[in-house]
Amino acid sequence: MTSIPRDQWYVAAYGREIGPALFSRTVCGESILFWRTASGRVTAVADRCVHRRFPLSELPTRLVDDQVVCGYHGFTYGADGRCVAVPGQTRVPRTARLSTYPVVEQDSFVWVWIGDPVLADGTTIPRAPWLTAPDYTTVSGMEPLAARFGLLVDNLLDLSHETYLHGGYIGTPEVASTPITTEVDEAAGIVYVSRRMADAACPPFYSRSTGLTGRITRWQDIEYAPPCLYKLHSRIAPVGCLPDPDGTDLDAFHVEVVYAITPETEHTTHDFWAVARDFALDDEEVSAFLAESNRTVVLQDVAALDVLERVVASEEDGYQELSINIDTGGLAARRILARLAGGRVHQVTS
Amino acid sequence: MTSIPRDQWYVAAYGREIGPALFSRTVCGESILFWRTASGRVTAVADRCVHRRFPLSELPTRLVDDQVVCGYHGFTYGADGRCVAVPGQTRVPRTARLSTYPVVEQDSFVWVWIGDPVLADGTTIPRAPWLTAPDYTTVSGMEPLAARFGLLVDNLLDLSHETYLHGGYIGTPEVASTPITTEVDEAAGIVYVSRRMADAACPPFYSRSTGLTGRITRWQDIEYAPPCLYKLHSRIAPVGCLPDPDGTDLDAFHVEVVYAITPETEHTTHDFWAVARDFALDDEEVSAFLAESNRTVVLQDVAALDVLERVVASEEDGYQELSINIDTGGLAARRILARLAGGRVHQVTS
Amino acid sequence: MTSIPRDQWYVAAYGREIGPALFSRTVCGESILFWRTASGRVTAVADRCVHRRFPLSELPTRLVDDQVVCGYHGFTYGADGRCVAVPGQTRVPRTARLSTYPVVEQDSFVWVWIGDPVLADGTTIPRAPWLTAPDYTTVSGMEPLAARFGLLVDNLLDLSHETYLHGGYIGTPEVASTPITTEVDEAAGIVYVSRRMADAACPPFYSRSTGLTGRITRWQDIEYAPPCLYKLHSRIAPVGCLPDPDGTDLDAFHVEVVYAITPETEHTTHDFWAVARDFALDDEEVSAFLAESNRTVVLQDVAALDVLERVVASEEDGYQELSINIDTGGLAARRILARLAGGRVHQVTS
Repeated sequence: MTSIPRDQWYVAAYGREIGPALFSRTVCGESILFWRTASGRVTAVADRCVHRRFPLSELPTRLVDDQVVCGYHGFTYGADGRCVAVPGQTRVPRTARLSTYPVVEQDSFVWVWIGDPVLADGTTIPRAPWLTAPDYTTVSGMEPLAARFGLLVDNLLDLSHETYLHGGYIGTPEVASTPITTEVDEAAGIVYVSRRMADAACPPFYSRSTGLTGRITRWQDIEYAPPCLYKLHSRIAPVGCLPDPDGTDLDAFHVEVVYAITPETEHTTHDFWAVARDFALDDEEVSAFLAESNRTVVLQDVAALDVLERVVASEEDGYQELSINIDTGGLAARRILARLAGGRVHQVTS
Repeated sequence: MTSIPRDQWYVAAYGREIGPALFSRTVCGESILFWRTASGRVTAVADRCVHRRFPLSELPTRLVDDQVVCGYHGFTYGADGRCVAVPGQTRVPRTARLSTYPVVEQDSFVWVWIGDPVLADGTTIPRAPWLTAPDYTTVSGMEPLAARFGLLVDNLLDLSHETYLHGGYIGTPEVASTPITTEVDEAAGIVYVSRRMADAACPPFYSRSTGLTGRITRWQDIEYAPPCLYKLHSRIAPVGCLPDPDGTDLDAFHVEVVYAITPETEHTTHDFWAVARDFALDDEEVSAFLAESNRTVVLQDVAALDVLERVVASEEDGYQELSINIDTGGLAARRILARLAGGRVHQVTS
Repeated sequence: MTSIPRDQWYVAAYGREIGPALFSRTVCGESILFWRTASGRVTAVADRCVHRRFPLSELPTRLVDDQVVCGYHGFTYGADGRCVAVPGQTRVPRTARLSTYPVVEQDSFVWVWIGDPVLADGTTIPRAPWLTAPDYTTVSGMEPLAARFGLLVDNLLDLSHETYLHGGYIGTPEVASTPITTEVDEAAGIVYVSRRMADAACPPFYSRSTGLTGRITRWQDIEYAPPCLYKLHSRIAPVGCLPDPDGTDLDAFHVEVVYAITPETEHTTHDFWAVARDFALDDEEVSAFLAESNRTVVLQDVAALDVLERVVASEEDGYQELSINIDTGGLAARRILARLAGGRVHQVTS
């Protein structure tokens, strides 16, 4: 039984990755072929010729005038997946058609719908508007993870690990020691985890980017919309500096850390990460520093989760983890994911 | 269930590969030990000591006076497979005997019988006489293929792929666009596929070897004797040049392209290829060019089929391909192979 | 069904390998975390955090004042396995505890008990006193083996292979040709195999270390205490030189070759080897020579057994080996191992 929810939107790529050339990525076990048509639209079709299943992303397959010519026997397809030419005969079989995927390009991401296309509703895609907003500057990337997506969800829902796994980057003792509050919106299927540190050390990630030198007030407000979009609303300010009663918050630094958690296969994951800030908007040195630092942090997670995947994969059935207060958000996320996947997810829930 | 027919002759090697030294190759999942005895005969025995199964092809096993001395405990076998010495005792158990394989050396190939030796009849082995005929010159080789043998059968029975996968070598637009005729001799179990191009471009493979500069008449007559031997009778001549009514054909160039398709395991294959020509017999430059070109073409197939194997291996059961006219020969071949394998071959037939 | 006996003592390491730093090794499929505490005792606990199963042997896990701090979320454990701190709360759950392994450090080895700790009795561990005795000098090492432990047991119980696999090192024709005597103490579960060569060539291993130049009397007395400890009492002396009637044996050279055969997983093994001698005690050149030679011999076994593992792993069920007199000891060992494993071991017994 799979633990990957279907009938869901997933981030397949950044829009910048897809141009007028063939590009493929596997999402939830399905290899998908993308390109940007002359009209600027991103197309997404099954990456497999209907004839003898040759992957259309493999050379010598070519894209000619927005048509894909299979590199094996020359079956030719339009951007709508319909076959327009086959070798040795003029009649093209009616059923010669690549399946297509609903696509929405939004907030710098290319979202695809995995499941029954009839159910796809682009208005339900969760938003991350900072990633393209003019009053924010964003750095972003994607790292391949050799671990099931659930391990990354666990990781991101419990930030106490920053203190240990990411010490020297984003972790300080206060992250692990400060209790969290967790809320679950069962109807909307959103998990909120909040940790508010009133008086904390400022880790290098924030001190070098903001210029703050003393102790800080640090808020970590997580908002996870399973299965794919994770947002960490991060607020940094000098100790004692709080938002005005009307919500304006001009003296604080805001960082929106966004992850798109996309299963590649049952046991591998695309780990998209983006860091948007509302300060030092044009400072390229700050951009370079945050990009480099966040990538390092993500790779620390990747190393740990790749190890963990091997442990879990070789685990006997029925192994029991021990959970404590910090796991409340992660356990809620697992419960929602299991519901979305249409059953209990035995391997990754306790 | 295996898709590999047993009780069949398969090409295990070129005769030139086997001399007075131990040589092993796996055929249909069976590791076989070969050497050429002092009398010049090729012997073929199971590559596994009867005692503790040590592979006799592994060092420090040695061949001494046409006897194999196992490198682990010294069990010693004659060319007939019979054990003649064991350690620590003078009595050799009656049952200490390597199984032997019927062998026929013919047309430059070493054929072995895989299955029940009682059923082996060397007179039924299909022939490829050009490979050793004095009025032909041959170049040949073998490339390992990380794909099931059925994918190579599909590939060779449908030459429309030459236009796409082998453009610039042997493919021109006319190959894909010219319809084929297919005949099946069900009694003999032979598949014939014929494509006759009356007016076609001459690809580099033929223009550089024959010296023809204009458009050509090009005949591709396939004759496949499942499971192992595939022959492509290729006739190249200036446009309009046909054989005389009595069959003499002195103004054409004839190339016999021979493949031996030998399963190594369920998912890997030995791809033996040979190109025999009846012109420029002593021209070493032509020999070098044809050898290099055909090897390149074979490696293009290998790359594509290795990709395809990974697709097929990860495919769900019941996946349906779409077949068209060009596939008539391939589908007939699959049907015969399934019959030879003693059942329907679900994975590679539709 | 596993072929690895549980409720047994196994050698996990040499004592010298374990100091005041985290060290892990997998024994019988269980990853175990070791370190030597400030008091000098070797501790052994499960190498997996109770919280989210992070392997405690992985960075950035640290050892601080004899406490292990998990590199993922900071769960902290004492040498007794008990958790003493967790993130985000002061209460530590009662059940937060790493399982511990009984450990005995003896004869240079660190033994661990695999199975139910209640059954562990350190007094039953077989001894190899020469390895730390003042009147012996020992060289030793460990080589990883990509083969199931039973293949190494087979190998060591039948030394006729020395003649073939280890010719030029420890093998001479007489080893393979001299019959053995085998005794089995079924009650104690010990297998004895003895081969006494009255007049044999002296292989380089012994001639270069002892200085003997002529033919020798060579005794090989094997004593195997399944599953883990194998001892080869080797006696070398000039031809005709026998022990005195009272057992004193001053003119002979004695070498105690000790192997600890520890399953790492079902299909891999830790191959610990040690060579203790009662001559040339302070001669570092002899030590270097014996260490180098024995390691070479072990690596010859490793190469052969790694090959054999691949053969056996791909073997069909029910394959029948052929056994002869030299296999009497090995077959007895298999029988005892199967009994210890609680059943018949189908894969490695015939």
